[in-house]
Amino acid sequence: MTSQVTGSLAFLLSKLGQAAAERFADRLAPLGLRPRHCAVLQLLEAAPLGQLALARTIGVTPSVVVDMLDELEGVGAVRRVRDTADRRRQLAEITEEGRELSRSAAEVASQVDAELLGGLTPDQKRALRQALTTVATAHDLLPHG
Amino acid sequence: MTSQVTGSLAFLLSKLGQAAAERFADRLAPLGLRPRHCAVLQLLEAAPLGQLALARTIGVTPSVVVDMLDELEGVGAVRRVRDTADRRRQLAEITEEGRELSRSAAEVASQVDAELLGGLTPDQKRALRQALTTVATAHDLLPHG
Repeated sequence: MTSQVTGSLAFLLSKLGQAAAERFADRLAPLGLRPRHCAVLQLLEAAPLGQLALARTIGVTPSVVVDMLDELEGVGAVRRVRDTADRRRQLAEITEEGRELSRSAAEVASQVDAELLGGLTPDQKRALRQALTTVATAHDLLPHG
Repeated sequence: MTSQVTGSLAFLLSKLGQAAAERFADRLAPLGLRPRHCAVLQLLEAAPLGQLALARTIGVTPSVVVDMLDELEGVGAVRRVRDTADRRRQLAEITEEGRELSRSAAEVASQVDAELLGGLTPDQKRALRQALTTVATAHDLLPHG
């Protein structure tokens, strides 16, 4: 009964995760977006947010948030505005262009899902989603919406 | 009905895949191994192989194979030997130490599986394995054993 590394779920997950990430990044690139931008845009669709709040919610350092906002500002998806409640604070606000990009990114993600998982039955897709969501939640890997 | 990037299976897979890969790499490091070494050791457990055959089977370039074999030789897991059928050719051969390392790596992979997927029922684990294997096979992501 020798188990093998390549038969482990960790191995399968890392191979598939890498394939999914690369494919998604490739498809997003023409939009001027990177995968890590998507969660930021999604959050800002609900309301403008400060950098610290964004960092906490996404689970990255504030300096990474600054980089991401610079990049998003560069493609016109985000603008920095003064917080009306506290004029010393800056908030990141999504633009109309940003909302459009976020919608396009969601379409790209759906396409990648369809391409990657085309070989699965609807039941298998449901089971896969349920299992992955359970594991991701248990390990605190999802943005805290 | 706005779907979101973070709700896509591609997003979930990439997050979990990254977490699985990082955890596995961390646990392997004390053995002097990297994740990419494991498939090589597994293949060499069956028989000595030439660099081109290894490259083809794992799906990497020959120069990556050379690097991996250098690293594996460095930890005493592999030795290069002359092919008795063709003295100009070199084969990579696993050592006793290499077999031991490969067993340890498989144990590490099992531990990581247990840690990552502890929240799933046996049925969920089976469904997850089946779905991931189907997708990985469809996209030719597994070593050609």
